[in-house]
Order: sequence, then C-alpha cells, then structure tokens
Amino acid sequence: MSKSKLDFVLDVDGVLTDGTFLYDENGKVLKSFGPHDSFMLNKIKDRLNIHFISADHRGFKITTQRVEDMGFKVTLVNEKDRVEYIENNFQYESLIYMGDGDIDAKLIEKAYIGIAPINSRQAALNVAKYVTKSIGGQGAVAEAVDFLIDNNIV
Amino acid sequence: MSKSKLDFVLDVDGVLTDGTFLYDENGKVLKSFGPHDSFMLNKIKDRLNIHFISADHRGFKITTQRVEDMGFKVTLVNEKDRVEYIENNFQYESLIYMGDGDIDAKLIEKAYIGIAPINSRQAALNVAKYVTKSIGGQGAVAEAVDFLIDNNIV
Amino acid sequence: MSKSKLDFVLDVDGVLTDGTFLYDENGKVLKSFGPHDSFMLNKIKDRLNIHFISADHRGFKITTQRVEDMGFKVTLVNEKDRVEYIENNFQYESLIYMGDGDIDAKLIEKAYIGIAPINSRQAALNVAKYVTKSIGGQGAVAEAVDFLIDNNIV
Amino acid sequence: MSKSKLDFVLDVDGVLTDGTFLYDENGKVLKSFGPHDSFMLNKIKDRLNIHFISADHRGFKITTQRVEDMGFKVTLVNEKDRVEYIENNFQYESLIYMGDGDIDAKLIEKAYIGIAPINSRQAALNVAKYVTKSIGGQGAVAEAVDFLIDNNIV
Repeated sequence: MSKSKLDFVLDVDGVLTDGTFLYDENGKVLKSFGPHDSFMLNKIKDRLNIHFISADHRGFKITTQRVEDMGFKVTLVNEKDRVEYIENNFQYESLIYMGDGDIDAKLIEKAYIGIAPINSRQAALNVAKYVTKSIGGQGAVAEAVDFLIDNNIV
Repeated sequence: MSKSKLDFVLDVDGVLTDGTFLYDENGKVLKSFGPHDSFMLNKIKDRLNIHFISADHRGFKITTQRVEDMGFKVTLVNEKDRVEYIENNFQYESLIYMGDGDIDAKLIEKAYIGIAPINSRQAALNVAKYVTKSIGGQGAVAEAVDFLIDNNIV
Repeated sequence: MSKSKLDFVLDVDGVLTDGTFLYDENGKVLKSFGPHDSFMLNKIKDRLNIHFISADHRGFKITTQRVEDMGFKVTLVNEKDRVEYIENNFQYESLIYMGDGDIDAKLIEKAYIGIAPINSRQAALNVAKYVTKSIGGQGAVAEAVDFLIDNNIV
Repeated sequence: MSKSKLDFVLDVDGVLTDGTFLYDENGKVLKSFGPHDSFMLNKIKDRLNIHFISADHRGFKITTQRVEDMGFKVTLVNEKDRVEYIENNFQYESLIYMGDGDIDAKLIEKAYIGIAPINSRQAALNVAKYVTKSIGGQGAVAEAVDFLIDNNIV
C-alpha cells in the first residue's frame, strides 16, 4: 500500500496519555506519556502519514515537546472545530482515526478504521472498530499499531 | 427546568482528582486532574448552577487554578464547617451533591441527588443515589453528568 | 482505653504512599500522598500515640513535610535498625504496627495488631492480622483506622 | 554459585519504572520509581553481577541518578544496538535478562533465565520463563529476585 493512500490521525490526551495532567499553583505543568508508542509508530511511519491533533491549548507546549521528540507533528484544533478540520484535511475512506472523547466518537465512526483506547468515553467505545486493551499512555497506541499490522492495514 | 431550580455542588479532591497530591521538600506542589470533566460540565452549565468546594487549604491555589481554568468558582470550606456551609447557602431539595469523604456522606444522603465516585469512602458509597464507574480525576464527573442527562435531571 | 496503653507505629513509604517516588535529574524530588488518611488519624489521635518511621533518607525532607502537615512526627530509621528501634522504644503487647516491606513483616507478626496494605510484600501479607483493601497512599491508613474503631481496639 | 558465573541485566523503563515519564514544556523531566526493588537487589548483589541498560537518551540523567542511588551502574544502549551490545558483553548461558519491550523479547528468549513484568509487550510475555505479578516500578524487580532465590538460581 503506497504511503499516500492512508492517514493515521491521533488525538493526544487520553491516547498518548491517560488523559490526566498535573497542575501547580500557576496552572498546567506536566503530562505523563508512556512506553512502546513511539517505537511502534516509528516502525510504520514510512507506510502511512501520521498526524497528531490536540484541543488542549493550556498544555500545548508540553504536547508539542513530546510529539516532536517522537518525530511527528501536532496541530492545535478546538474540540468544536475538530470534525470540520478533519473533513477539510483528510478523507474518511483513507483515514485511520484514534481518539477517546465524545467529539472523537463521530470521527471514529466515520473513519475507514476507528480506534479507541479502553479508557475512552462510552460514545467512542460504542463506535470503534478496535478498542485497545491498554489505556492511553500505557501502550494503547503501540497496540493500535499491532492491530493495523496484524490485519494487513499497513 | 429553569437554571435557578438546581445547584450542582462538587467537592474537588477525590472527585475532580483521584485524591492524591504530590509533595516536594517544601510541601504540597502538584495535583492531577483528568479528562472529559470540564467538557461535560460546560455542556450543562447553562442549565444549573455549578459550584466547587474544597477543604484543602494547603493545595487551594492549585485547586483554584484548575477550577477557574474550567470556568467555575471554588470556595474553601473546612471539613467541620461543610454541612453548615451547605445548609446556609443551598437547599437540599434542589441540591445535586458529589463528594467522596466521610463528611460528604451526610450531604450525599440529604441532597436531592447524591453522587459518589467509586473510590469514595464506604460511608459515602452507602448513601449515594449514583456511584460512578470511573474513579475521581479519571472521568467520574463526566459520568455524573451523563447520569444527570440520561435521567432528565438536567 | 487510656492513651498510654497503645502505640500506633506506621511506616511511611507504601503505607502513606503507594511506595513510588519521582526523580528528576538531581534525584528524588516528589512523593504522592492520598486522601482520608490524615482525617481518620486525627479522629483517633487522642486515644493512642501515633508515630511514623521511614527508612528513606533521600526523601526524608519530603516525608517530614507531609507527616508534620498531618500533625504527627516521623523518625528516620534504617531498615536494618528497624526491629531494634521498635524494641527499644515500644512494647509488642501494646503496639499496633502498619508496614508493607520484608523488614516490616517481623514487626507485623510480633505486634499486638499487625496491619499491611494490599500492595505489601508477600512476607508482610502472610503475617498481618488485617490487610486493607486499598493500596498505600489511596486510603489504606484510613481503612486501618476503620478496622481499629470497628473492632473496639481504639 | 560463584559471582562470576551469572549476570543479571535489567532494562530500566517498564522494569524499574512503569514505563511512563513526565514532560514539562521543556521536555522529559521526571520518572517514577518504586519500592522493594533496591532492597531486594542489594540483598543478592554479592551473588551475581547486576547491570542496567536503557535506551532512553532524553531521560538518561534521571535514570542514572536512580540506578546509582541504588548502588548500580547503567549503560545507554540504543534499541537497535541492544542485541549486539548484549552479545558482545555477556553470554546467554549465564545471563538472567529482564525487559518489557519488543526488542527485549529476543533477549528474554535467548537468555538462561528471561523475565518480564506483567505490563510488558506481548512479544516479551510470550517468551519469558517468568512473568511477574507486579507491574514495573511497583515491585516487579523485587518479585523477580524472589523467583531467583526461591528457585535456587542465585
């Protein structure tokens, strides 16, 4: 399958993290990321286009640090603009989408392949083609890549 | 249902967080908050009055940062003054109350709707009308809002 | 029961915390403590003598901050000196002891009441009179106090 | 068994930690380590050679702080060089290896004794002689030492 055929778009919070974030007296300061996700995404990065999106404007610098350390790019997109952003930049028939929230549910449902971590909101779990056994930030993305490889999707 | 009819009062620690907090050599410095709670509270904020209370005076600046980032207000109320504060400012018949502690149990029991996260003290779990499946700080408040919406309470 | 009759000695790491600690590039900087423990210990503090011990010399300033914020004292005692320290300062027949490690197992076994959090080493679990359902740092001490009250020990 | 006969090589992330790490706006800043591992490794350190390896170059200073505080040494080895590094420095027939990743699976399989924490990648779990009940960073290494002692391996 040529690289141009498929896009893999991933939400960050709840997918690359478990959705939690640490606050100090001045606001949002730390997020926890986990193992195996970077290793497995880099294993398939030449076979599809990988993009990250995040609605977390207060933690966006933290998110950017991590996503860029992994070798990828992340775009800040408000939750209310998420569906429009995806529709303007991708095509559902070639989209692999991974997310955990209520807004993500619509995209998980319409995408060619929709994936949700087990710690997702029920609306997302209801429509996902694949639900990972791991929670976000503890191997969920690595497991999603396993699923894509094992099913010859990438 | 008009906005003036219902108040939703939430304890912070153990509800908006899992109850843990990080100390450095100088004391309390960080608390962990989680996903979906802010999104779901903002979804219903025009349909009822949302208030937060906290007894954690050492972590109150951290708490205030997070609650205000979500768009709400928080009041510092000592545990021993909690029942009196609620009775002076709200009416049980129009009160939705969510808490996790021994002191909260009395309020959960007397409120119109009493809610406790699954990681609450047994006294609170015993009297709650609804116990969330998620622990505090990992979607418990979002799930409480689901309950209120699904049962046409808000 | 008079206050002089009973001592309640608690290990800190794994009991008041889940045993984990955060390192930065300069070493140990943060520990996570949890809800309900301080509230419940203060509820019984006039009915017995409460003491904390810790073997963690690198994190001792952090530990001291938390224990003193709760209103108690903590003594630094090396693991190899723990049994001797207890025997020099307390009497097993009036000792309630709560710990989670291999060294603690000996004290848990010999104490009048020996308590271990569920996340303890097997050696401690094997000899504890009471094993809490909660892990350390997430309500285990509060639950131990429940046990002492419910069984009329304090 | 003489000390020169056996080497115990342990990966750090996912073994001595749960694999997660905290980022601030400037990158990787904190890792969480856990209880009992240092105590149990020091108990057997005169009976075999203990070495740590890590592929995490961004968190290597943090890793080094912790491993050296425990009294051991850690070497930075890229994931792609891991098998070659092990083969150049150790012999499989006298190697006890503990790891959690896809790359580790090959070493776990070929080692005299291969051990994986329960939170390891499936490939590692599939070939491990012993899988710990605890996750990395919460006693998995202590449990691995129990296994080695209980089976008269050290």
